[in-house]
Amino acid sequence: MRIGLINIGDELLLGKVLNTNAFDLARWIGELGHELAFTLAIGDGIETIAATLRDCRGEGKDALPRCDSLLITGGLGPTQDDVTREAVAEFLGVPLEYSADAEVWLAEWLSVKSQVITEGQKRQLYVPQGSTALKNPVGTACGFRVDVQGLSVFAFPGVPSEFRTMFDLHCRPSLLRRDAVLLRKRVHTFGFAESRQRELFRGLKFPEGFRFSSLPTESGVALSLEAFVENEKIPEQVILLADVWEDLLSRLPPEYIVDREGSTLPETVFRLLMERHATVSVAESCTAGALGYLITELPGSSAIFKQGYLTYADESKNSLLHVSTETLKQHGAVSEAVALEMAQGCLAAADSDYAVAITGIAGPDGGTAEKPVGLVYIAVASPKGSEVKRFLFRGDRKINRWLSAYSAMNLLRMFIINDLQR
Amino acid sequence: MRIGLINIGDELLLGKVLNTNAFDLARWIGELGHELAFTLAIGDGIETIAATLRDCRGEGKDALPRCDSLLITGGLGPTQDDVTREAVAEFLGVPLEYSADAEVWLAEWLSVKSQVITEGQKRQLYVPQGSTALKNPVGTACGFRVDVQGLSVFAFPGVPSEFRTMFDLHCRPSLLRRDAVLLRKRVHTFGFAESRQRELFRGLKFPEGFRFSSLPTESGVALSLEAFVENEKIPEQVILLADVWEDLLSRLPPEYIVDREGSTLPETVFRLLMERHATVSVAESCTAGALGYLITELPGSSAIFKQGYLTYADESKNSLLHVSTETLKQHGAVSEAVALEMAQGCLAAADSDYAVAITGIAGPDGGTAEKPVGLVYIAVASPKGSEVKRFLFRGDRKINRWLSAYSAMNLLRMFIINDLQR
Repeated sequence: MRIGLINIGDELLLGKVLNTNAFDLARWIGELGHELAFTLAIGDGIETIAATLRDCRGEGKDALPRCDSLLITGGLGPTQDDVTREAVAEFLGVPLEYSADAEVWLAEWLSVKSQVITEGQKRQLYVPQGSTALKNPVGTACGFRVDVQGLSVFAFPGVPSEFRTMFDLHCRPSLLRRDAVLLRKRVHTFGFAESRQRELFRGLKFPEGFRFSSLPTESGVALSLEAFVENEKIPEQVILLADVWEDLLSRLPPEYIVDREGSTLPETVFRLLMERHATVSVAESCTAGALGYLITELPGSSAIFKQGYLTYADESKNSLLHVSTETLKQHGAVSEAVALEMAQGCLAAADSDYAVAITGIAGPDGGTAEKPVGLVYIAVASPKGSEVKRFLFRGDRKINRWLSAYSAMNLLRMFIINDLQR
Repeated sequence: MRIGLINIGDELLLGKVLNTNAFDLARWIGELGHELAFTLAIGDGIETIAATLRDCRGEGKDALPRCDSLLITGGLGPTQDDVTREAVAEFLGVPLEYSADAEVWLAEWLSVKSQVITEGQKRQLYVPQGSTALKNPVGTACGFRVDVQGLSVFAFPGVPSEFRTMFDLHCRPSLLRRDAVLLRKRVHTFGFAESRQRELFRGLKFPEGFRFSSLPTESGVALSLEAFVENEKIPEQVILLADVWEDLLSRLPPEYIVDREGSTLPETVFRLLMERHATVSVAESCTAGALGYLITELPGSSAIFKQGYLTYADESKNSLLHVSTETLKQHGAVSEAVALEMAQGCLAAADSDYAVAITGIAGPDGGTAEKPVGLVYIAVASPKGSEVKRFLFRGDRKINRWLSAYSAMNLLRMFIINDLQR
């Protein structure tokens, strides 16, 4: 099935709201084994909306890619700006019609708060003639569905939680495929440029129908290879997929693979520590908490994380972590020597199995020719030894801080793995 | 001017990438005083793209809202999937043509890394005949511009940083308006539900042409009232805007207004501390660094933040902050008493002017009937006194943690303002 999405609302065109509904729907549709043909955001105007719908029914010159189902979100509220009901009626050439179901649902919803239907809300009780009102269990605006010349049109509210609930209730069941399943392999790499990876993958032959994607983010590059495979072909395709995936992984230098089973960096660090019944502590300067936040991202983190130190000032590095004043004076706070002493001091003070320290210049100010903005030292220590690495990030303050925190997670990951061999 | 945006790329329709280009462009266009007519995301297909372009030129039945300029992003890479060049050429009915400029730019870009143009990259040296190649100073793919029957078409790369740079270089100058300016008032509220605010604003008459918006986020509700006003009307409109804005602010309980001049919560806390030459320290349990991260979000934070403590474990609350073991035993770590002792202990240990402490149950596990998931206590202390507040958040782990951190920022803001009266 090919599905089109039309998001209605001036707020999307004014840059007030990020269109997460389009992003979410794309994922759901893909995971259900169907295709999202397009997503279109337009303003709240009856004629604009109706013209678009006419094109989707095949009356225009197919400006929009063809689809079997059309989801419309937004424009179902009680105010005069909300014209999706009117626009669909105009497109169908029918009047709006009162829905007794809609009134029951709205009255029910309001009764929980001891409220009754207001004059303004009465608009929400009408749907285009010939359409079916659809219950909204988490809000005031009902949706509706209408089938016209092979095109199924669904109208849902634009509030993301309401959109999700109504999609699950009214669309998902009819999209479930019994003839095929999603076969998927995923892996994250960290610290290895996407363009260099692509060179390594040259000549890889992916099984027919499988889609490879490679997406760079702050937390590394997410690689995936996936396809919807018909039931009878599953056994052979599972083997083909496993083989090509093994080939792909073998082309990557192993130290850049976060986890061969596909876990993310926070998940992998968590697992490595849990397996060793080990704890980690942190000493953060420029990130001031971002690393502690990431380390505790998963539930149950209290087993692996006891405490950390945010030592933004030089005095704090000395008083809390016992970084020597001579080291600070001689090398400056952003230096290999200070990062190492921070990690070692943190390990001793927190009495943990591992300690990670970050010191750097996040920017935009504070850089010099010798120590530019983006220069960051990250150190890891355990009772068996310690190591430090220099980074030079080129983002803005926010990006530099999060890249520092993720790089520290990755350095900790590699340090734990290598620690056995020390 | 009315501008349309077409985002090209299968990754958008597969839910791999959030379409931030559409969001960013909407903001830029609005702030420049023009109108974004629509945003459309479609896949990498020559005929699909060409059909859409024909509609925009007025050959279809206007499925898409009319526009004067069309921005196309994506599909300009070196691989065979990237077909935007071919699609625009197909739409224009012209062949692709080699651009000497494009070759100079690409060679220049690659020379920095001592690389030369590869066979695959040669595709990127071609643009549709009759169009003008546009320099990309931050990447390998050049863009192009072509004017056809009153419609200006720009093609830019989809990578957000490249899109932004090329928009600024090649579009922004021609969009600057000399006949009008943006008049805007903004304010953030925190801790006051948007629906309750709307009730308070009932009956407010906004000046004609002004657009009011109210957007709830984790860092509070952002309210704005804005319009592009023609030069000769500015004096009278400034007064009208000031009056209605004063009326709007006066309807809000003052304690919920983050800053009457429109600053955000991190900006306001930063300013309040700077004005008082005061420092703050933090003691975080469930947030484990999110508050320290927010407090140091602005450059120059070292003037207001020296150090902080991440005390996830009970022992750490005792050893680092001197929370008494009796208090921990009697009340539990998530309690008013522990939050207060954390803040007071942090103040003493860090020797700062203010201290903020957070202790809570972020979830999804660890809740009980008496102390459910989302229960958070936040305390603030200064040498003049201290206070603590109970919160019950209803989000997931991530939302609960960030709401805790922002609520702590807001409590600190109110505490500093009231501190003078202690």
